[in-house]
Amino acid sequence: MKRRDLLTAAGIGAAAVALSGCQKQECDEQAAATTSEKQTFEWKLVTSWPKNFPGLGMAPERLSKLVDTMSNGRLKIKVYGAGELVPALEVFDAVSRGTAQMGHSGAYYWKGKVPAAQFFTSVPYGLTAQEINAWINYGGGQELWEEIYAEHDVYPLPGGNTGVQMAGWFNKEINSIEDLKGLKMRIPGLGGEVLKRVGGTPVNIPGGELFTALQTGAIDATEWVGPYNDLAFGFYKAAKFCYYPGWHEPGSMMEFSINKTALNGLPADLQEILKVATKAINQDMLDEYTARNNAALSELVNKHNVEVRRLPDEVLAVLKTTSDEVVSEVAKTDPLTQKVFDSFIAFRDGVSNWHALSEQAYINARSGS
Amino acid sequence: MKRRDLLTAAGIGAAAVALSGCQKQECDEQAAATTSEKQTFEWKLVTSWPKNFPGLGMAPERLSKLVDTMSNGRLKIKVYGAGELVPALEVFDAVSRGTAQMGHSGAYYWKGKVPAAQFFTSVPYGLTAQEINAWINYGGGQELWEEIYAEHDVYPLPGGNTGVQMAGWFNKEINSIEDLKGLKMRIPGLGGEVLKRVGGTPVNIPGGELFTALQTGAIDATEWVGPYNDLAFGFYKAAKFCYYPGWHEPGSMMEFSINKTALNGLPADLQEILKVATKAINQDMLDEYTARNNAALSELVNKHNVEVRRLPDEVLAVLKTTSDEVVSEVAKTDPLTQKVFDSFIAFRDGVSNWHALSEQAYINARSGS
Repeated sequence: MKRRDLLTAAGIGAAAVALSGCQKQECDEQAAATTSEKQTFEWKLVTSWPKNFPGLGMAPERLSKLVDTMSNGRLKIKVYGAGELVPALEVFDAVSRGTAQMGHSGAYYWKGKVPAAQFFTSVPYGLTAQEINAWINYGGGQELWEEIYAEHDVYPLPGGNTGVQMAGWFNKEINSIEDLKGLKMRIPGLGGEVLKRVGGTPVNIPGGELFTALQTGAIDATEWVGPYNDLAFGFYKAAKFCYYPGWHEPGSMMEFSINKTALNGLPADLQEILKVATKAINQDMLDEYTARNNAALSELVNKHNVEVRRLPDEVLAVLKTTSDEVVSEVAKTDPLTQKVFDSFIAFRDGVSNWHALSEQAYINARSGS
Repeated sequence: MKRRDLLTAAGIGAAAVALSGCQKQECDEQAAATTSEKQTFEWKLVTSWPKNFPGLGMAPERLSKLVDTMSNGRLKIKVYGAGELVPALEVFDAVSRGTAQMGHSGAYYWKGKVPAAQFFTSVPYGLTAQEINAWINYGGGQELWEEIYAEHDVYPLPGGNTGVQMAGWFNKEINSIEDLKGLKMRIPGLGGEVLKRVGGTPVNIPGGELFTALQTGAIDATEWVGPYNDLAFGFYKAAKFCYYPGWHEPGSMMEFSINKTALNGLPADLQEILKVATKAINQDMLDEYTARNNAALSELVNKHNVEVRRLPDEVLAVLKTTSDEVVSEVAKTDPLTQKVFDSFIAFRDGVSNWHALSEQAYINARSGS
C-alpha cells in the first residue's frame, strides 16, 4: 500500500501524520481517537436574502463566524446570498436534496409543500417573539416542526426574529374598515388573505420594486418589516402615513434549515456547536432589531416628520376576527397541520393570559395607559 | 520533497498522532500545535441558588452540559449550589479572587461593592427581558458592565431572565396608596426602598422562611418570582390575594460572572464556546419561565381558585414616580453609576417609544384592550 492510500484507507481525511514509529494496535487506536477531532467539514448555506442584508441577512454570516471560531476551523460554512447558488425561494429544496447543507429563510415560504410550515414564521394575531421561542422550546413546537419536515430530510431551528412589525406605509387614510375596501396593498401570505376577505386587493411585489410602486400609485400601501429596514428603503418619501401595529406579523421567526443526513454526519461536538450557535443567533437578531428599530423610529419621526398612526380599534377588531377564521381554515388542510394549529393556538391562548398579567400589564403601567 | 513538506503541502495542519518516529524539531512543532486542542480545563462554578432550583438554578447545570459536549470534554464545569463552596452572596468575591472560575447569580446582590451593578439585574420601572437584552448587546450595556467589574477581574455575561415578575402575595387588600402605609412586606433592594418612601415597612427574609412568615402574620405580604416558582412555594395557601404586575422587577436578568484571568487562559475556541453557550442559556431561561408561568398561572387560578388582582392605577402611578426618584438617587452615588444610569434610562425611554407601537400596541390589540 502506498502511503497515500494508507491515509485514505484509514478514512482519516486530514489526520494521521507520522504513523511510522508506532505499533500497529497503538496506531489504530490513536487514529480512531483523533479522526473526529481532526476531520474538517466545508458546508454551503443558502439564503433568501441579498448578502449582508441588514438584520435578516446578517444572521447566517454571524453564524458562520461563530461556528468557525468555536470549532477551531473544523466546520466552515460558506454563505450564499439569494440567487448566488439557488433562487431565493428554493432554499428548502436545496437543503432537502443536499445541494447545500444549510439554509436561512422563513418557513412560511414553503407552505405550498408543507402547509403547516406557516405556523413557524408568523400568523396574523399569533405569537410575539418571546412567546414563539417559548412555544418552540418548552411548548412542543420544536418537535412538531421536526415532524412536518421529517420526510424532506430537513432539520429546522429558530434563526432570529424581527419582533412585532409595522402595519405598513399607506397613501390612503384608514379610519374605518370601509377604507380597506379596494385598497391595493403589497401584503403576502395569510395577512394578504385576510385583507382580501375584508375587501382589499393584496398583491405581491418584490422588495426592490416597492418604492416605485408606492410612489407611482401602482399600489396604495405596502407592509415591509419595521423602522430599521423601512428607513433604509426610504418609504417615508413615497407614503403619507405609517400605521401600526403589525397585526399580520407579530414576531416573524426566521428558520435555519439543516440537511439531516449532513447534520448526523457531524461528530457530536460539532452538532452541538452548530445547534447552540443558532440559538445565540436567534436571540441576537431580536436584540439588534429591538435596538435599531428604536433608533430608526426616532429618526423617522423627528428628522423626517413621519406621521405614525395606530389603526383604529374597529379595524383591528375586524382584522382579528377575520384572521382567526383564515388561520382556522389553514388548519383544515390536513391532519398534521391541524395538530400544529391546535398546539399553537392552545399555547397562544395560555400565554396571552399570562402576558396579560406580566408583559402587557407592566408595559401599560410604565406608559401610564 | 521531504515527508514533512509533503504533509504540509497536503494542507494537513493540526494532526500529529505518533511522535515516536519524528525528528526532534518536527516533534516539538507537532506537540505545540496540538497542546491547546488537547489541554483540558476543570472549572468550578458557584451559585446563589440551591442546586437544581427550578428555573434560576437550572441555568448553570445546563451550561455545564452544553459546554462539555461542545468542547468534547475539554472544558468541564462543576456546579456548586449556594453554601457548598461559598455562601450564596459571596459568589462575586469568589469569582473575583479565583476561588471559582465562574459564578451564576444576580448582579444587584453586589451593590455594596459596585453600586452600578443594580442596573444589570432589574430596577423598578426599568427594562423588560427583551429590552434589557437589546440594551446589553446593541445599546452599550455590555461594555458598561465590563467596565464596572474591570478592577475586580470579573467578566460578566447575561445568564437568563425571569420575565416580568408578579407584584406579590398579600393578606391586605390594596385599594389605594394609603393601604401600603404600614404594610410589612418582604421586598428587597430598590423595590423595598420605594415601598418605604410610600410608608411601608420592607423586610428581607430568606426564601425558606417566607411561607411561615406569611402564614403567621409576621409579614403582610411578600414578592417572590412568578407563578412557576410561587406555586411550588405554596404561597396561595398562606395569602388571600395575588397582585400584579411586578413593577419592581420587570425582567430580572441573571448574571454569569467569569474570572477574567481564567477566561483569558482558555484557547480561543473554548472562550467562544463558553460565551455562545451563555447566550443560549440566557434565552433558554426566559423560554422556560414564559411557558411554565403560563401553565402554573392556569393551575393557580383554575385549581386553587387564587384571586389575581391588578394593582390600582393610582398605586401604580405613585410607585412609578417614587421609583424614578429612587433610581435617580442611586445614579448620584458616583460618576460611573451616573454613566450607567444615563445609558440605561436613555435606552428605556427610546425603546418604550418603539414598544408603544409594536409589542405593547400589538398585545393590546390582540386582547381587544
